[in-house]
Amino acid sequence: MTGPGSEIERLIELMAKLPGLGPRSARRAALALVKRRERLLLPLAQAMAEVAERVALCEVCGHVATGPRCGICTDARRDATRLCVVEDVADLWALERAGVFKGRYHVLGGTLSALDGVTPESLRIPELAARVRAEGVVEVILAVGATMDGQTTAHVVADYLEGTGAEVTSLAKGVPVGGELDYLDDGTISAALSARKAF
Amino acid sequence: MTGPGSEIERLIELMAKLPGLGPRSARRAALALVKRRERLLLPLAQAMAEVAERVALCEVCGHVATGPRCGICTDARRDATRLCVVEDVADLWALERAGVFKGRYHVLGGTLSALDGVTPESLRIPELAARVRAEGVVEVILAVGATMDGQTTAHVVADYLEGTGAEVTSLAKGVPVGGELDYLDDGTISAALSARKAF
Ligand SMILES: [Zn+2]
Ligand SMILES: [Zn+2]
Repeated sequence: MTGPGSEIERLIELMAKLPGLGPRSARRAALALVKRRERLLLPLAQAMAEVAERVALCEVCGHVATGPRCGICTDARRDATRLCVVEDVADLWALERAGVFKGRYHVLGGTLSALDGVTPESLRIPELAARVRAEGVVEVILAVGATMDGQTTAHVVADYLEGTGAEVTSLAKGVPVGGELDYLDDGTISAALSARKAF
Repeated sequence: MTGPGSEIERLIELMAKLPGLGPRSARRAALALVKRRERLLLPLAQAMAEVAERVALCEVCGHVATGPRCGICTDARRDATRLCVVEDVADLWALERAGVFKGRYHVLGGTLSALDGVTPESLRIPELAARVRAEGVVEVILAVGATMDGQTTAHVVADYLEGTGAEVTSLAKGVPVGGELDYLDDGTISAALSARKAF
């Protein structure tokens, strides 16, 4: 049999590792790239090379950054005494799109899961507690999803923050049950943030 | 507001143009790339650059190729008197995985659609007829999907092939109604091919 050819096979194999793409959609995407060489394949190869060279995760908060610290952590106008804890960078972006939070962030990078071996350490929860103590943070807002995993994670984060002196709050019940932050419109996010309450 | 940053924004914008990825899944995929720089982002950028440099579509049949003609068109052991007409390269791969067809291909690159401006010319159907005449092809197997668009396209291809002297056949009714070739298992494809009948 004559397969797709080794260059294309390698591309398909790597594309299939992206979240949201299975082997079949990876094949379709690879073919779309070959067909749109100038307008999609070359620009995408270039954009990836640039991101690989210039972008990493902020060593303080876990946001994407073009240096050791991200634009939010280095922005002196952002309130360093309020931290918003989110599951993922996409959630941080959703909050920034809403434009109502002027503090800083801690990106967990997931939710706790004993099954998948996700520990408080791998989500840098001890570092969060240390940061709260060191930087004199007065409020930590738990802006995690209203999912079971999200709420379990929120409780563990709150436990770690006990004794730090910071008030721990969570988003108001504007977040639909079972919903993920990244899906919400700006209005819902704003309302949930303003009506936040003690955790 | 602090956005994702221009490099990441550019990457997300390009990823969102891939079939199967919307804006939201493009964001998730871009983040997955940043988090897996060494194991996914750099290899993928490299694989894309290589495909961009080395892979194009075969000028004879429309399959992917690392030269002007693909591995199947240049393989002297493949029967040049039998052509299999498929909608897409992914369908060609599905037939090759089944391993039962030893002829060559004509990849249409889609199905006819007056609405989307897809004409017989843009699917290179006149070229197919010319190729059948020039190369003394004895059989053209219409291996298109059992969808309405696929069947309309098959009828138009058959019309173009009238008077070429080639027998026009289609896959046996092993292809589920409404089904696309690329989803089928090898056994179904083999059975449909062996039981092919006059169109
Ligand atoms: Zn940061
Ligand atoms: Zn070819």
